[in-house]
Amino acid sequence: MTHPHSGFDPAASSLAGDVAPEVMAELLSVRSSIDNIDATLVYLLAERFKATQRVGHLKAEHDLPAGDPQRESAQIARLRMLAEEAQLDPAFAEKFLNFIISEVIQHHQAISESRRPAPGAGRPASENTAEGRDERA
Amino acid sequence: MTHPHSGFDPAASSLAGDVAPEVMAELLSVRSSIDNIDATLVYLLAERFKATQRVGHLKAEHDLPAGDPQRESAQIARLRMLAEEAQLDPAFAEKFLNFIISEVIQHHQAISESRRPAPGAGRPASENTAEGRDERA
Repeated sequence: MTHPHSGFDPAASSLAGDVAPEVMAELLSVRSSIDNIDATLVYLLAERFKATQRVGHLKAEHDLPAGDPQRESAQIARLRMLAEEAQLDPAFAEKFLNFIISEVIQHHQAISESRRPAPGAGRPASENTAEGRDERA
Repeated sequence: MTHPHSGFDPAASSLAGDVAPEVMAELLSVRSSIDNIDATLVYLLAERFKATQRVGHLKAEHDLPAGDPQRESAQIARLRMLAEEAQLDPAFAEKFLNFIISEVIQHHQAISESRRPAPGAGRPASENTAEGRDERA
């Protein structure tokens, strides 16, 4: 059954022809939980990026570096500990956080660059300083 | 302040000396939301891996391949659409799902391999078939 609005078919599978119907039914039931979890992950990640975007703007406003090594190592140690509590592989949790952090640092750098006037844009040199940057960007 | 049980310091930062106290206070407030989101992500990912582990065991029991290309492309299309709704970069959502799926496929392969008797383990050859595998593994 394809969802009416999204075009998403929760039963899409390359396995369909090779699987007994009762096995397929169980597979689809578990996949439906995975689909719910994935939607939650997407909305949660969107919220996380809203928060890190706020951090990115704060850092750019105050000329702070995009990365923060002490913060990152405290986060990694905490997530490994939480992963153990949740019975998730701590090495995977660390890989996951590094994946997210590297994306966030790219965003921070982009925010910081978007605040710098383009070279030769005709602004007075005094504007090309932390104080002179366009804070609305 | 270090948390009493975890040793986690939510104020850990390499920036501390260079930042005005009111900026640091705002940074820590946003980071505290990020920390809450990250704990939620860890528990949600743990739940997702429990579900994919169930899928992995089903696939191994019924000799199905670890990957399922049609399922994966349906998932990616859906997550890109959800990401747009959530104002998350769809390219990031796709990269994220690929990151998770490649981890899941490794888990499925490990489950499938752990069910195969080790070579030379002294079992009769007839056991080295789908039917003869140790389903308790």
